[in-house]
Amino acid sequence: MTNSENSEASDFVVTPWEVSGKIDYKRLIQKFGTQPINDELLERIKKHTGDLHHMLRRNIFFTHRDMNWILDEYEKGNPFYLYTGRGPSGQVHLGHTVTWEFTRWLQEKFDVPLLFQITNDEKFLFSDKFDKVSDLDQVTRENILDIIALGFDSKNTKIMIDTDNAKTLYNAALPIAKKITFSTVKASFGFTNSNNIGEIFYTAIQAVPAILESIWEGRNVPCLIPHAIDQDPHFRVARDVLPKIGYYKPASIQNSFFPGLSGEDGKMSSSRAETAIYMNDTPKQVKKKVNKYAFSGGQATIEEHRKLGGDPSVDIAFQWLYQFFEPNDDKIKKLEEDYRSGALLSGEMKAYLIEKVNAFLKIHQERKEKVKDNIEDYLISD
Amino acid sequence: MTNSENSEASDFVVTPWEVSGKIDYKRLIQKFGTQPINDELLERIKKHTGDLHHMLRRNIFFTHRDMNWILDEYEKGNPFYLYTGRGPSGQVHLGHTVTWEFTRWLQEKFDVPLLFQITNDEKFLFSDKFDKVSDLDQVTRENILDIIALGFDSKNTKIMIDTDNAKTLYNAALPIAKKITFSTVKASFGFTNSNNIGEIFYTAIQAVPAILESIWEGRNVPCLIPHAIDQDPHFRVARDVLPKIGYYKPASIQNSFFPGLSGEDGKMSSSRAETAIYMNDTPKQVKKKVNKYAFSGGQATIEEHRKLGGDPSVDIAFQWLYQFFEPNDDKIKKLEEDYRSGALLSGEMKAYLIEKVNAFLKIHQERKEKVKDNIEDYLISD
Repeated sequence: MTNSENSEASDFVVTPWEVSGKIDYKRLIQKFGTQPINDELLERIKKHTGDLHHMLRRNIFFTHRDMNWILDEYEKGNPFYLYTGRGPSGQVHLGHTVTWEFTRWLQEKFDVPLLFQITNDEKFLFSDKFDKVSDLDQVTRENILDIIALGFDSKNTKIMIDTDNAKTLYNAALPIAKKITFSTVKASFGFTNSNNIGEIFYTAIQAVPAILESIWEGRNVPCLIPHAIDQDPHFRVARDVLPKIGYYKPASIQNSFFPGLSGEDGKMSSSRAETAIYMNDTPKQVKKKVNKYAFSGGQATIEEHRKLGGDPSVDIAFQWLYQFFEPNDDKIKKLEEDYRSGALLSGEMKAYLIEKVNAFLKIHQERKEKVKDNIEDYLISD
Repeated sequence: MTNSENSEASDFVVTPWEVSGKIDYKRLIQKFGTQPINDELLERIKKHTGDLHHMLRRNIFFTHRDMNWILDEYEKGNPFYLYTGRGPSGQVHLGHTVTWEFTRWLQEKFDVPLLFQITNDEKFLFSDKFDKVSDLDQVTRENILDIIALGFDSKNTKIMIDTDNAKTLYNAALPIAKKITFSTVKASFGFTNSNNIGEIFYTAIQAVPAILESIWEGRNVPCLIPHAIDQDPHFRVARDVLPKIGYYKPASIQNSFFPGLSGEDGKMSSSRAETAIYMNDTPKQVKKKVNKYAFSGGQATIEEHRKLGGDPSVDIAFQWLYQFFEPNDDKIKKLEEDYRSGALLSGEMKAYLIEKVNAFLKIHQERKEKVKDNIEDYLISD
C-alpha cells in the first residue's frame, strides 16, 4: 500500500515499511536532514558513559537529531527517557536486536526509564496477512519475551501494547492528529488516496510515547528515541507537531540496517527467511544458514584466497562481527587484517561468527525461558 | 475544514458537519440513495407499536435504509438494538432532541437496548475552538444529563463517551479503518488533503457502535440507527464496509432538520444562538425568543390577517407544533385551518407554542435535576 517517497530517480528506498536497494547513507542523511554523529559528540557521550558502545565507535549508530540538547538537559539535571518500539509481525531476528541492544546500553549507562511500544495495530493495518488484530496476539507475546530477554531492567522499563493501551494512546493521539494533515502524511510517507484511514492516522499513535512521560509527570521530559533510520519519517512528523501542542521535540539516535546473510541490498528481513537468523534458531540452524548463505568476500579457492586475500567490506561474516558480535576492537582489527591478507579463510571467519552467534543465542534463549512468567512486570495498563 | 460534497451546482449542502441552504429532501433522498417511508412500512411498524409516533405520521422521520429487514428479523425473533449519538460541542437545543425523543419511543415500543455514543473526539477534531479534548468535559457531562433527562430507561441504555471508551472503540475501529481508503472518505465527506488525520480516521470510530452488540454477544445482532439525515454519509460508509468484515449492514431511520426560529435555511444551530431554544432556557427566555425571533407566516396587520389568513407552511410557531410539540392530529389540523382562515393570529399561535415548549422544558429541567447523580448508571467502562 505504501509508495516510496524516493520517487525521484534513485537506487534505494527507505520508508518505515520498505527498505530496498543499495543504500547511500550519506545521501539518506541529507535527504532526511539528520546530523552525522561526529567525534565531538562521541567524546561528550563518553564523559557520561565511561566507554563507548562499539556500535557508536564503529558508526553503526551514525546519525542523530538533537543529541546535544539531550546531553545539555541531562547535564543540567533534567534527564531524558528512552522510547523505542517493535512492530510484531513475525519472529524477532538478529537485525531487530541491534537497536534494542544499544537502547539497553543507553538505559544502563544513563540510568533512565525506557518506554517500549509494541505496534500491533500498525502491523495489522499495514499488512494483508492479518484478518483480525488478534491474529497477532501470539507473535506479540513471543516478541515481548525476546525483548525482555535482552536484559531490560523491569524497574526502569515499561512495555505498552498498542491495542491494550489504546485508551491512553488514542486520547493522547487526538491533539497530535489534529495538527497533521493528509498532505503531510502524503509527503512524509508517500501515501496515496488508496491508503487506508487506519494507516493514515497511525503516525499519531507512534508519536504518543514521545510525550507520555511528560503527560504522566505533568511537566516536559526530554525524550530520546533510538531507532533504525527507516523510522525517521514518523519522528520527523512528530518533531514538527509536538511543539505546536506544548511538548519538546523528541531527539533521536539512529542506526543503519543490519544486513541479511545474502548481503543483498536493504536489510535483514523476515520476508527472506534464509537470509535471517531468528532468536529461536538452534545452533545447528545457525551453523547451516551461515555456512550456506553468508555472502563471502573470499576468493574462489583457498589457494587464490591465500594469495590475493579477501574483502572484509562485503564479507557478511565479518560485517556481522564488526557491527554486532565482536565488540573488541583489537580482535576485529586483526580479523580484518588477516582476512585481507589471506591468512584468515572465509570458512574460518564463518566458524568464528557461528561461535559468537550461538553463544549470544544460548544466553538469550535461556533468559527467554526464565522470563516467561515476568511479562506482567513490564506491561502497563491503560 | 470540510468541503461540501454537493459541489455540483446546488442550492443546499448536507454533510455531517454542515447543513445549509434550502434543502430539497426529495433530491437529498435520491442523492443519498435512501428509501422514503411509505404507508406500507408505517402500517408494518404500527403492527408492533400499536400507534405511530406523530413524527412518523407527519413524515418528520421520512426516510430509511433496511427498515423492512429490521422488522423481518424482529418478527423472526431476532430483535435489533438501537444506536444513536451526540457530538457534544455546546448546549443541547430542541433541534437535537427530535431524534432522541423518537429513539426513546422506539426503545419503549420495541423494548430493545440502546447504545448512545458521545463523540467528544469528533467535536475536538473538527473544531478550532478546542485546544484540549478535556475542554469538552463540562459540556459532555451537561449533554449527557440532557440525554438521560429525556427518559431513557437505564436498564436498557448504555452511554459511551468516545474518549472514556477509546480502548473498545479503537480496537473495534481497526478492522473497519483497514477497509476504508482516503478515496472513500474524500468522496463520502468531501475531504481534501488539508483535512487532519484524526478527521480522516474518525468515521471508523462512528461505525463501531453499529457492531458493538454483535462483538459483545458473539453473534450478529441487527442494528437500527435513528439519526438526522446529515449523518447518512457516515453510515453509508459503514454499510459498505461492515459486511466485508463479517457484520450486518446497519439499518437506519432518518429525520429531516428541525428549523431554527428565524426559519432560515438549514437547521437549528447553536452557532446562531438567537434562533435556538436550549434545554436550560427559562420560561421567560423562551417567551422572549419565540415572540421576537419566530418567523411568522401571518400578515402585516391583524386586519389583513383576519381577511387573508396566514401561511402555516412557513410559520415557525406552527412548524414547531407540527413537527414536535403538538402530537394531537385533530388539534394540529384545527391550528392549521384556523391560521389559514385568519381566525388564529400569529401572536396566538406563538402563545400556544410557548406554553407547549415551557411545559416540555419544565419537565425536562426537573428530570435533569433528579438524574444528576445517575450518570454512572448509564456509562459503560472500557
